[in-house]
Amino acid sequence: MAEKVSLLSFWPSMFCARARIALEEKGLSYEYREEDLPNKTPLIMEMNPIHKKIPILIHNGKPVCESLIIVEYIDDVWSDRAQLLPSDPYEKAQARFWADFIDKKVYGAGGKITWHRYKHEAAEGKEELIENLKTFGSFSIEAECPKLIAWGRRCSQRESVSKCLAEPNKMVDVVVRFRRMFGLK
Amino acid sequence: MAEKVSLLSFWPSMFCARARIALEEKGLSYEYREEDLPNKTPLIMEMNPIHKKIPILIHNGKPVCESLIIVEYIDDVWSDRAQLLPSDPYEKAQARFWADFIDKKVYGAGGKITWHRYKHEAAEGKEELIENLKTFGSFSIEAECPKLIAWGRRCSQRESVSKCLAEPNKMVDVVVRFRRMFGLK
Repeated sequence: MAEKVSLLSFWPSMFCARARIALEEKGLSYEYREEDLPNKTPLIMEMNPIHKKIPILIHNGKPVCESLIIVEYIDDVWSDRAQLLPSDPYEKAQARFWADFIDKKVYGAGGKITWHRYKHEAAEGKEELIENLKTFGSFSIEAECPKLIAWGRRCSQRESVSKCLAEPNKMVDVVVRFRRMFGLK
Repeated sequence: MAEKVSLLSFWPSMFCARARIALEEKGLSYEYREEDLPNKTPLIMEMNPIHKKIPILIHNGKPVCESLIIVEYIDDVWSDRAQLLPSDPYEKAQARFWADFIDKKVYGAGGKITWHRYKHEAAEGKEELIENLKTFGSFSIEAECPKLIAWGRRCSQRESVSKCLAEPNKMVDVVVRFRRMFGLK
């Protein structure tokens, strides 16, 4: 059977970028379907009736939801191509731990900055984000920042990453547009 | 090398029960260390400096944190014993989806009931919990409840589960004690 892979995505979403990078790293052919959030198409509602969120990977008609679950699914199905997670169980657990950390600690704090209603919320988010980044890998971001920056640069030099990430200016525009849409100043 | 496995646990925690059930299902010998929360021992701080939370699995001196990551780690390391996750990638993704759903939707709503400060918060939590349980597997809990109850009963008949779950009365006592400790009526 010919494999049919589609990704329902929304370009400003880091979770969609995560799923897309996994597809790119594996070198898979897939249909990229840009969704127009916050409008949710019937396809989103049908494929992810529980969370009604993107990204959604559709593989031969069957949906897989939640970006980290999508990444592991892609790695499991196409295990003969570029390995995404380490095969050693302990290293794999570490990789899962940090991915989970990003979702729980970094994304939430970043969201407070982006979607604050009052200035103090943005300030809290900023403080929380810096604090959480400091604990990342037990290093001080002030002292060790070059390593993080260098890692980010190495990542963004990979074609799989660069083609999935939006330009900063475009991101600022979309945040401004969404804030207006949600009645935030 | 002889395997040394310890679990830092706290009996009322569903996350600790989850990790412990995985060890029991595999039939592993392990040291069970009951922690006395909310006091956090130096061992918790050392083994999980990022979240400072239990459960923590310590395998030959190395910590693994976050209950779902612990379950997958146990399944990966002792892959020759009772398999916990399905081997089919799609079924595995489904299992991960529902485990994640429990953490995001059911636990949070349950927490609102247990740790409410005002009555309306408990009422909101109750409504949310029922709503989320209704979406579980696309069935109506009112109409299909017997299946859920039957599944719960089958689970609790397994020794691995029954020995890891606390008695309801004991749970009520600890919630009352903790609510007082946290200044909640």
